[in-house]
Formats: sequence, structure tokens, C-alpha cells
Amino acid sequence: MSSVLVANLRASTSKQAFSVNGINSMFKQYPRHFSNAMMLRNKAPTGIMFMNMGGPSTIEETHDFLYELFADNDLIPISQKYQPLFAKWISKFRTPKIEKQYKEIGGGSPIRRWSEFQALEVCKILDKTNPETAPHKPYVAFRYAKPLTDSTYKQMLNDGVKRAVAFTQYPQFSYSTTGSSINELWRQVKKLDPERKIKWSAIDRWPTNTGLVNAFVENINKKLEEFPADIRDKVTLIFSAHSLPMDVVNTGDAYPAEVAATVYRIMETMKFKNQYRLCWQSQVGPKPWLGAQTAQIAKFLGPKCDGLIFIPIAFTSDHIETLHEVDLGIIRDSPYGHKFKRCDSLNGNMTFIKGMADLVKEHLNSGVNYSKQLPFDYVLGKSNDPAEIEALFNAKN
Amino acid sequence: MSSVLVANLRASTSKQAFSVNGINSMFKQYPRHFSNAMMLRNKAPTGIMFMNMGGPSTIEETHDFLYELFADNDLIPISQKYQPLFAKWISKFRTPKIEKQYKEIGGGSPIRRWSEFQALEVCKILDKTNPETAPHKPYVAFRYAKPLTDSTYKQMLNDGVKRAVAFTQYPQFSYSTTGSSINELWRQVKKLDPERKIKWSAIDRWPTNTGLVNAFVENINKKLEEFPADIRDKVTLIFSAHSLPMDVVNTGDAYPAEVAATVYRIMETMKFKNQYRLCWQSQVGPKPWLGAQTAQIAKFLGPKCDGLIFIPIAFTSDHIETLHEVDLGIIRDSPYGHKFKRCDSLNGNMTFIKGMADLVKEHLNSGVNYSKQLPFDYVLGKSNDPAEIEALFNAKN
Repeated sequence: MSSVLVANLRASTSKQAFSVNGINSMFKQYPRHFSNAMMLRNKAPTGIMFMNMGGPSTIEETHDFLYELFADNDLIPISQKYQPLFAKWISKFRTPKIEKQYKEIGGGSPIRRWSEFQALEVCKILDKTNPETAPHKPYVAFRYAKPLTDSTYKQMLNDGVKRAVAFTQYPQFSYSTTGSSINELWRQVKKLDPERKIKWSAIDRWPTNTGLVNAFVENINKKLEEFPADIRDKVTLIFSAHSLPMDVVNTGDAYPAEVAATVYRIMETMKFKNQYRLCWQSQVGPKPWLGAQTAQIAKFLGPKCDGLIFIPIAFTSDHIETLHEVDLGIIRDSPYGHKFKRCDSLNGNMTFIKGMADLVKEHLNSGVNYSKQLPFDYVLGKSNDPAEIEALFNAKN
Repeated sequence: MSSVLVANLRASTSKQAFSVNGINSMFKQYPRHFSNAMMLRNKAPTGIMFMNMGGPSTIEETHDFLYELFADNDLIPISQKYQPLFAKWISKFRTPKIEKQYKEIGGGSPIRRWSEFQALEVCKILDKTNPETAPHKPYVAFRYAKPLTDSTYKQMLNDGVKRAVAFTQYPQFSYSTTGSSINELWRQVKKLDPERKIKWSAIDRWPTNTGLVNAFVENINKKLEEFPADIRDKVTLIFSAHSLPMDVVNTGDAYPAEVAATVYRIMETMKFKNQYRLCWQSQVGPKPWLGAQTAQIAKFLGPKCDGLIFIPIAFTSDHIETLHEVDLGIIRDSPYGHKFKRCDSLNGNMTFIKGMADLVKEHLNSGVNYSKQLPFDYVLGKSNDPAEIEALFNAKN
């Protein structure tokens, strides 16, 4: 019996009874040819589900993506009754414009490709660093694009997943993003898994995860190197997060303060060596949204600044808000665009991916199924169809 | 020659030429009877000026305080020309109501008493920990109440201060608070000290100072102890900061994100053991302000919560917004007030005061005269009469 297996057995023994039983029964079945790889094949996989809003991978998916987005009553609370009608109308109306934007960034959103890559890499690392919960199987569940939560859930049931982590890919919690994904997960649990074959827990926020912060610092420093040495320390850092309507901010949504926490930790790690500000992008419609607005600040600073870097701080992969709104709308189209650069999104950055693997490992071994803040987010958040947090993530079942 | 003196001499030698010269000339004057105390008496004092908005110490000062407040074009940008007229009218109109509030909290604001105490204690500590810049002399300069900046400046000139630190007592920078105080300081420099007898530097923000954070943690833990043990971990922590009008937030004012940084550091130190949220208080007038509003969240949570602590997070001493708005307006007057408590303000907390002394010591020895962010605050901030940061705080003069 290999030492790895002994270690795994010890770890399993100290964890959960069902694992030990599983391994014991495998022992009886394969008394001689027992290997780590075989054990991994025979153990129920731990599902690591990356949750995000998603984006259309192809132009053809744009309409359906928009429909799902506008149909989300948690994101855009219009009317539970008339929301589908509204979504049908507005998505049809908006499709040509948004299709054009996706064409301009290469024919679709790269978010699925990046999410699948990141999830796979995180699982590969976890198989090594946390063998007691191996094998880890990567999943992606998007709120508005393929793969949607229901198809991912069916796949997980087919794969025999018994334990799964709902891992939000929004590092900072908003009820309208992570909350909406959790609400959708709860609907699918009730529909597809009433017997609760899969035991869920959640990583519901991670604004100051070490790998996340260090990856941002790496990418910012790399971008600073692209400026001439004599102006490098005068370059302005504009951290840009997706804005929220003020009526969501005013409910006490956790997001603005958690985004600020990420920014502060990054600047602290960089010893505040550049001037910086947190701004907010992608405001739409007539209602007031949280500012300062990235585009307005860029316009104001354009003629005055030596150089400026936009840092997408609340999404971890490239998407239309970086590739189109910032790269084209703000940088390419500005008369001062030659002074502007955008910091790379985290995408395949391995510091970031290792940080996520550390986070999941810690979560799996913590015995804590969700953060202390999550139930409170659900007290303050407004939804017509909210998840029951305790029932969904209750460890005792 | 005492060992303390030797140590002082060594420290001075490694610092600044003028100190060494000063000490050398004293050596010649008092070759035998040289003592640390005498050296302190003969050296020009380092002025530590605590800047804050202030409040009327007596009921009689209320009108003048309100006049100064409404006359501040940096705080309430109405019209440079008509602001004094407006201030005259509105302060007369508001005085009876505000006088009544000050009567209800004991006949005046305690902010002067606390500020003088804190500044004195900080200087006492600095005399011990940083003898090379001793003696340290405490000053208070309020923006709207006695002692105003001009009278404090005159006193400093009389005292022979040659080096002074403009130490903002707002831990988180806003252009409308710290910025306004710095603008007023610059006006007084030009008026009272055109020859620049006093060399100024600034501590313009300190949102995650260790002593500040630990003092908050101490006070929150003390307050949690007042709740029964069985509900203690269910108590909600509402961090409450003075709000800002959205038109100030939308300029890119640093304040909201820096307040969030303070809150996050406190919660991190407390290992996120309670549910918490950052809210904003003291909104007035018809314009939109940053939320969530403390009073509204308190009203919403009242019937639902087990217990709730309000933590004043952006002022360090008690003032009318804690003693009246929270203690009376929110807690006393709520039907759920029995579930509500307010965390003590930092006031005379020695962890806090030691933290400030550490901060000033580090600043005095850093060779850095203001933060990297301050000039950028002045690019984004709107003022009809802004300070010239480099000219005001330039070390090379």
C-alpha cells in the first residue's frame, strides 16, 4: 500500500465517516491492486461549480443570453408576473446592438473558455493538495448563458457528485449577482434534486483572497512597465467595477464596501506607490447609479494625466465590459487614448488560479458551509423567489 | 552626559542638520548642566495640530459654529459670492433647533475637550518615543468652532513652532472634510505666515492605522459583552459613517472606499465573527446622498434582529451625530431600542491614542510630507479656493 494512500486514508478517517466507508469497501473489492488513481476513479467526485453571469460564446447565443438577463427578477426587479414579457420584448430590441458589440470583440464572449480553464486547473491542483476530497470535478454554471445551472446540475447528478461547492466567481458579494446565482441554484435543487443527492456548500465572497490580490498586483506592475520609466510613478490607477443602481446600494448591499476592500488590499500590497481611485462602470438607464463613473473620470483626467491604467476589479475574466466598454468605448475612442492602458484581466494567471485552489481547499476543510454574512445578505436583499440558505447549504443533512 | 542625551544626539545626528546645529549651540551654552529637560525647553517645539470640524463647546457658540459651517464653500458649494449671505440666513434660521439638540446632550459638544486631551496625550508619548523632534506641543484647529485655525496658528507662531504636522482627525479622507481643513490652513499660512516660519507636513489619511482598528475592536467586543451570551454571536454590527451627497461621491471622492477599508480591517481582525454592514447617516436636504441610510436600516432590522450595535466609524470623538442622532434619534426613539446599543466613541481610549502617537512618530521620521493620494484628491476635488499642496507641504523650503 503506497504512502500516499496511507496518507489519504488517515486524512479521510479524520474527516467524514462516509469516505472511510467508501474506502473500506474498495479495499475489500481490490485487496491487491489498490492504487491512488483507482481510488480516485471509484470515489464520488467533489464538484467545484464556478458560478458567474456568463456571456454568449457565439453571436447566435446573444438573444437567449439577453432574454435570460432581462428575465432575472433579482437583477432587474420589474414585475414577477410581467418580467418574461418584458424580457422577450427588450431582448429582441437590444439583440442587434449587442450582437454588433460581440462581433467587434471577436465573435463572442471568452468567459466560458476562461471559466472552464480556471475550473479545470483549480481541480487539478486540488487533486494534489487535498487528496481527501479528490477527485475534484470542474463545472461551470452561468446565470444567463450556456452552460445554464440546470444543465450543469443534471451533468453533476450523472457524474455521481455527492458533495459540491457553489463557488461564486464574483469575488465581492452582491445580492444581484452571487445572490441571483444562489437563488437559481436553489430552484434547480428543488426541481432536479429533491432527494438532495448532492450536498452543497458555498464560497460566497473572497474579496481579499491572497492569490486574487497578488495576481492583480502582478498584472498592474506588468502594465506599469509599459509606461516610460520617468512617468511610471505618476500613472493613475483607476480600479473599475460594474456599478449598481442606487436603489440596490441603498438596501445595504455588501458589494460597494467589499470591492473597496479588494482595492485597498491591492494598494496596500503595492505600498500605495501610485495614485488611485475606485470608479464604477456600465451604468444604464435613467435611474441613479453608484459613481464616480469610470467613463466620466477618464474624460476628466484625459487631458490632465501623465498616464492611466484601468483595472477591471470585480470580474476575473475578460468579458464585454472590458473588451468593448473599456478597450473600445473608453480607450480607443478617446482623444487621450494614447495615455490610457487596460490592465489584463486575470483569465489564466496562475497566481490567481492557485489562490482559488487554496481558497477551495481551505473551504473544504473548514467545516463552514457559507459565510457569516450570507444569511444577512438575504435579510437585506430583495427577491421574489429567494433561496433558503440554511436548507440549501445545511451541513447537517 | 546622560545616556538618554547621547541617544538623542545620535538620533538627531542621523536626521537633520538643523537639529544637530541646535544641539551643538546648546552644548556651548550649557557645557556642564546639560539635561534632557533643558534641551527640550530650549528646542523649538514640533507642533502637532489636530484638525477637525469641531462643535460648539457651549450653547452660546452654536450660532457662530453654524455660520462657519454653512459659509464653507468646500463643504456646501453654493456660490462663492453669495455664500456668506446664505450662511447668515440659514444659520440664524437653524440655531434654535440645533441649540435644543446641544442642550439635550448636556449643553455643548465634547469634541474640543476630547481633542485637547488626545493631542496632549499623543504629545506626551511622542516626547518619550521620538526625542529627536521633542518637545511636541499639542494644538487643536477646528474648521467651524473655537479654536479656529487662525487663532491656533497665531498661538503656534507665538510658541516659536518651526515644524508642524497638520494631523487630520478624519481617519478617512474626504475633500469636503480634510480637504476643507487643508484649504483653510493654506489661507492662514498666506495671511499669517507669508515668510513660512512654520514648516508644515500633513497626515492626510489613516484609515487602517493599527491603533485605530484595535481600539474599535476593543470597544465593539466590550459592547458585545453587554448582550446575553446566547445571542452575542447573532448581534448585527452596523458601522455608521457620515454620508456624502452623491454629487460629491461622483467626483471620485476617496471617502467611501477608505471608510470601507477601515470597516473591513476591523471585521478581519474580529475574524468576521458577527454579521455586519457599512451604512451612512446624517443625510439632509432634498439631494440624493450615499446610502444605505443608518436610520432606515435600523428601522428595517428593528423587528427582525436579535441585537444591534451602531459603531461610529468616521469620527473618533463623540459629537452631536453620535450623542443625539444615534443615541436619541435612533435608539431612544425606536420601539426596538431595547435591542440597540451604541459602541463607545474612541474618545480617551489609550490603544487609539498610542496608535496616533505611533502614526505621528512614523510620519515625522519618514521624510514624506503628505500621501501620494493628496495631490490627486486635489485634481478631483472641487473648490473655489483650493490649497496649493506642494507649496504648502513642500519639504524643500
